Formats: sequence, C-alpha cells, structure tokens
Amino acid sequence: MKSRAAVAFGPNQPLEIVEVDVEPPKAGEVLVRIVATGVCHTDAYTLSGADPEGLFPTILGHEGGGIVEAVGEGVTSVEVGDHVIPLYTAECGECKFCKSGKTNLCGSVRATQGKGVMPDGTSRFSYKGEPLYHYMGTSTFSEYTVLPEVSLAKIPKEAPLDKVCLLGCGVTTGIGAVLNTAKVEEGATVAIFGLGGIGLAAIIGAKMAKAGRIIAIDINPAKFKIAEELGATDFVNPNDYDKPIQEVIVEMTDGGVDYSFECVGNVKLMRAALECCHKGWGESIIIGVAGAGEEISTRPFQLVTGRVWKGSAFGGVKGRTELPSYVEKAEKGEIPLDTFITHNLKLEDINEAFELMHEGKSIRTVIHY
Amino acid sequence: MKSRAAVAFGPNQPLEIVEVDVEPPKAGEVLVRIVATGVCHTDAYTLSGADPEGLFPTILGHEGGGIVEAVGEGVTSVEVGDHVIPLYTAECGECKFCKSGKTNLCGSVRATQGKGVMPDGTSRFSYKGEPLYHYMGTSTFSEYTVLPEVSLAKIPKEAPLDKVCLLGCGVTTGIGAVLNTAKVEEGATVAIFGLGGIGLAAIIGAKMAKAGRIIAIDINPAKFKIAEELGATDFVNPNDYDKPIQEVIVEMTDGGVDYSFECVGNVKLMRAALECCHKGWGESIIIGVAGAGEEISTRPFQLVTGRVWKGSAFGGVKGRTELPSYVEKAEKGEIPLDTFITHNLKLEDINEAFELMHEGKSIRTVIHY
Repeated sequence: MKSRAAVAFGPNQPLEIVEVDVEPPKAGEVLVRIVATGVCHTDAYTLSGADPEGLFPTILGHEGGGIVEAVGEGVTSVEVGDHVIPLYTAECGECKFCKSGKTNLCGSVRATQGKGVMPDGTSRFSYKGEPLYHYMGTSTFSEYTVLPEVSLAKIPKEAPLDKVCLLGCGVTTGIGAVLNTAKVEEGATVAIFGLGGIGLAAIIGAKMAKAGRIIAIDINPAKFKIAEELGATDFVNPNDYDKPIQEVIVEMTDGGVDYSFECVGNVKLMRAALECCHKGWGESIIIGVAGAGEEISTRPFQLVTGRVWKGSAFGGVKGRTELPSYVEKAEKGEIPLDTFITHNLKLEDINEAFELMHEGKSIRTVIHY
Repeated sequence: MKSRAAVAFGPNQPLEIVEVDVEPPKAGEVLVRIVATGVCHTDAYTLSGADPEGLFPTILGHEGGGIVEAVGEGVTSVEVGDHVIPLYTAECGECKFCKSGKTNLCGSVRATQGKGVMPDGTSRFSYKGEPLYHYMGTSTFSEYTVLPEVSLAKIPKEAPLDKVCLLGCGVTTGIGAVLNTAKVEEGATVAIFGLGGIGLAAIIGAKMAKAGRIIAIDINPAKFKIAEELGATDFVNPNDYDKPIQEVIVEMTDGGVDYSFECVGNVKLMRAALECCHKGWGESIIIGVAGAGEEISTRPFQLVTGRVWKGSAFGGVKGRTELPSYVEKAEKGEIPLDTFITHNLKLEDINEAFELMHEGKSIRTVIHY
C-alpha cells in the first residue's frame, strides 16, 4: 500500500514528504495508521548524522499514537481498530530481560531493530523500489507503519492520540526515571538538569513522588516559568555563578541532593549531576543521550563515599504493561500533556518542527497526519 | 604516659620504633592498649607520600584489636577491660548520616579525623615534645592509642584480638561490600577483580550470599589456589587474553555478571569491572582506593542501558552496630581469618610487613605488641 511519509534520505538534509510503499504485516507484525507523532531530540540527533548507528535512507519518528489497521499471522494481543502507542523498547515478556524483573530493556527485537529492519531481517518500507530503513522499530513519520506485536502498547480508545502520543517517549522517560529508576521518596531533594521535555517530565515525576524540594537547572531562564507551574521549587541558572554548578547546589542543599537527573546529554553536566549528590546516598540518573564516543568521568572517591551513578532508558517503563496507566494519569490530568505541546503542525511542515526545537522555541511539536 | 610506637617521620621512609608520649583521654575519648594490628595497603599508600591527605610525622595503622585502659569523662559505652576494635569509620548514631539509614559514613568526627587530630583539634601523641599526627582516627601502630568513644566497637572477650583485628578493615570491607552495598542474591554471578585481602574477603562474602558463580580475576595466578579454597568457581588471568578483560567475562557469562567488585584501586580496572556487568541490571562496586587525582570514565551508554556504578567504604558496615556479628561469624569459622594471616611479626619488624606486602608475598601480616 501507499503511505505519506517524511523520509530522511541522508544525514543533515531536510526530510522530504513523499509517498512510500508499505508492505503488509508478516507473522507477528502489525500495520498501524499513525494519527499523530511528536518530534523528539533523538530524531534530530540521528538526522544530524552524529548518531553512529544512524542509517539512511530512513523514516524517523518514535513518539506516535495510532490505530491498528491490520494484523499479521499469529497476532493475538491487538486487533484491528485498537488504539496503540508504538514502543521503541519492546516488551515480549519472555526473554531473559523481561523475566529478570530488573529491567525494561527487552531483548526480543533489539538486534534487528538496531539494524533498521524487522525481526525477519527485511524492511516493510520502500521508495521507488529501493528499501528504506525502519527507525527505532517505530518509524512514526510514516502515516502507515509496521511494527512487531511486542512493540505496541494498547491504550483506551477515549484517549486523544494527538496528545498521548507524547507518552511514547519523552514524557514517560522523564516521569519513569524518577518513579521507576530512582524511586524518589516523599520529602526528598531532587535536582533536574535541563528543562526540555524530559526534564519537565522529570519535574512532574518528582511532584508525583512528593519530593520536598525540586531544583530546576537550565541556562535558559525562560524555562523556569513552566518548571514552576509543574512543581519546581528552586531555579538555578549556571551562568549566574562563577563556580562549578555542583558546588552551588551542594551549598544550597546543605551537602547535596538525594537524587539528580541529567536530561540534556552533556557529559560535563552528567558529572556535575553526580557530584551535586549528597555523600552517603545521593543517586544520579543519566537520561540524556550523549554524543558518539563521549565519555563521563569523575573521581572514584565520589562513588566510594556513597554516591550512585545510574542511567535510565524509557524511564525504566515496561511499555505494554505500564503505559496504559500513564495514559490513565494523563486522562485524569495528573500528567498535563497540554503543557508540553507548544506547537501543532501538519506532516507537510515537519521540518519546521525541527527548526522550532533547534531554536529552543518549542517543548514538543505534535505532527498531525 | 609512654608508649612504644612505629612512627612515620616522613613520606617514603621506613617506620621508626620509638617511645612516644601519649596524653590521657579527654572527655568522650578512650585510651586503648593495642594487642595486635594488621598492616594494610592504605597504610602503605599514605606512607608512600602519594596520599594527598597524608600528614607527617604520624602514627599509621588502622586494623587493630585492643583493650580499653582508661576512659575520659562522659564515656558510657565502653569501660576499662573491654575488648574493642578501633573504627576509622565512626558510628555516633546521632548525625544526619547515621540517622539516614542509608549509609555507614558517620559525620561526627570526620572533619578532625581527616586533619590528623582528635575532635578538639589537638593530638594526644608527641615525640620529644613535638606533636605527632593521628591517622584515620585510629593510629594502631602505637601500643597505646586514644580514640573517640564513637570510634570503638566493643566485642566479646573470647575473640582472639590478634585475629579479629583484621575485621577492623580489609576483611569486613570485602564482605560488607558484597552483603551490604551490593546485596548479592542467591544464585547471582559475581566477578571479583584483585585477590588481595579485600578481594579474598569479597569471595567469602559472595559465598555467604550463596552466589552461583564467583569469578576470581588476578594477574598473579598464584592467588587462585586460595581463592578456590574460599569459594571462587572461575579463575581469569587477564594476561592470558589479548582482548579487554571485560569482553572475556561478558562472553564467559552469556552477557555479563550480576555484580562486580574492584578490589585493587586501578581506575582502568574499575572501568573493566563496570563494563563486564550485564546490561539491564549489573552493578559494579568500587572498593579499591585509586591514586590521587585519578579518574574513572566510561561511555554513559553503559549506565543508560542499566548498569549501576557504586562504591563502598568499610563495606557499608556500621562498626559499633554490626562488627560484633562479624566477630561472631569469625568465631564460628564462617569467616576464616587464619586464611588471611600469612605472617606474624613483632612491632620491631613492622617494616618487614610492608616489604612482604609490596612483594606480594603476604595477604596480611599481623603485628604483635
């Protein structure tokens, strides 16, 4: 079948809106009509060419909401008409990872997903007879996309897909890092580095966890207003100080924070986030994605004296099991998705969404098909 | 009073056995007669001059066992004749750290201890009228030493002080890192880097925790025999491979270990220990003390994909509360202290203990007064 799609033909080029060919779902696969999709920094990172695992030509997009149009042989967990959120972190329930009870990093489709193909090693997308790579197993920048069954979270039909699509990545990542990975306790002091979509979502998570103090850190003070609306209690602009920001935070918290979250992808900031943690118990969670080949470093003394360095992918959330509860919380207003949606655009204008993001003008732009 | 002591008059010089003056304990302090003391790598590290916090002249030693000789005003938890193990990690029970329930790093005497003096800012030791610095709050290389009350663990009088003195540092550190910091579960796969006293103790801890597989790693294969006696199941000499040791371990464990422990103090090995952990849940614990100014590093992706980087000081053990149970385990034979004691020497021969350690010939030498 034919599908409108925004195709990345090469790194650092604008996406082109073309009509691509989509093959029907094979066994264990599902055809989804995407209704709306967010545009995330990870899409921009891969599009920039900096992602060493980036493959072109490809159809980007991983923050979508859609409706099942057709199912392949053996698919039992979703049926035509179901509303779904595509998952770049699958949940098969049967692999070593899913069964461990310790991680959301399902291994079932990981190997092929990373190579831009479906589990059978081939692509369902082509343009003028040439295959296009899938992206993160989701490719939500195509109106019709094919996913493994294990990569779909079924959600209630009442939920507006053009809002809850944001739960497919950034919002869930930020909230989940606080609730699942860090397990922030009531009354804790929390520092959040970077007030993009993930950082703001982490503030929501900290508020849900009833953190006592939520310190929002960004070099763009224009972000502080919205951070405050979401529950941040303290605001720090590193540019206002001439000493390392970790020292500033340690001083303002009488020894450091209980939990910190790096939501930018800057390795220097990752170090600051660790080192602003309280001796004896402070935990720092890396959420941001650093550039290729970049490394974090610190003195081991920081860890020997009780700080813990962790990371979080998709907020430690098991998509098929847990995402429906996130949708429910959004429906109840506990996750204010509207706050994140600063812009709405048509697929034809998707390149504008990337520009708004690069200029720091948007939190999230939702693309409507 | 007079006391025989091994004094470090300057960095990188042999200790000198002299008679020093010891002042009586002030309020909250206790005079202890040391019966025996171990010699640990940390003593050697400070003696070498590499420790940026090392102060001279000083009386080293922090792995002792002794008997209370006199108590200062207000001391209530120990009395004359009690058997005690000096603690370089105090436990006051009242500070922010002790009350947190999250760490053993008591803050009560830390500031002055780091400066080589008692909590009132002065030293109890002098030689020819000139003050000598205390070391780690313990200075067990003096027959008579003065400690804060909060730095003494009272133990049963039946326990042989010339053996259980080793519970004052290395043995407890290794076991505690496994049981308290990592909380290794039954059946887990564990990698232990470095088979000195701490690494061997970590093997004992892993065995106590009923780890399913205990991988012992050292470039000196002579260490493997004793590691096996203590419970190690696999033995890896990095020199036998021409690829990074983390790759070797990931391959032999089908994806990596559940827990790893760095017991050397080598920052490259700390990285290997982290990176040999299993994606999704593997935790690496740094126990070794790195050289001044050295840093650990890795790609943040290692953490984002679920590995956790931690550290441990004195095995996360609260000395006054928990050490008596370690003594009990040693008495029952669950902690085979005799395995660690490869040499026994008199105080006069203490420099030989350092030589044996540098030459890799000893695990622990116990100095008898």
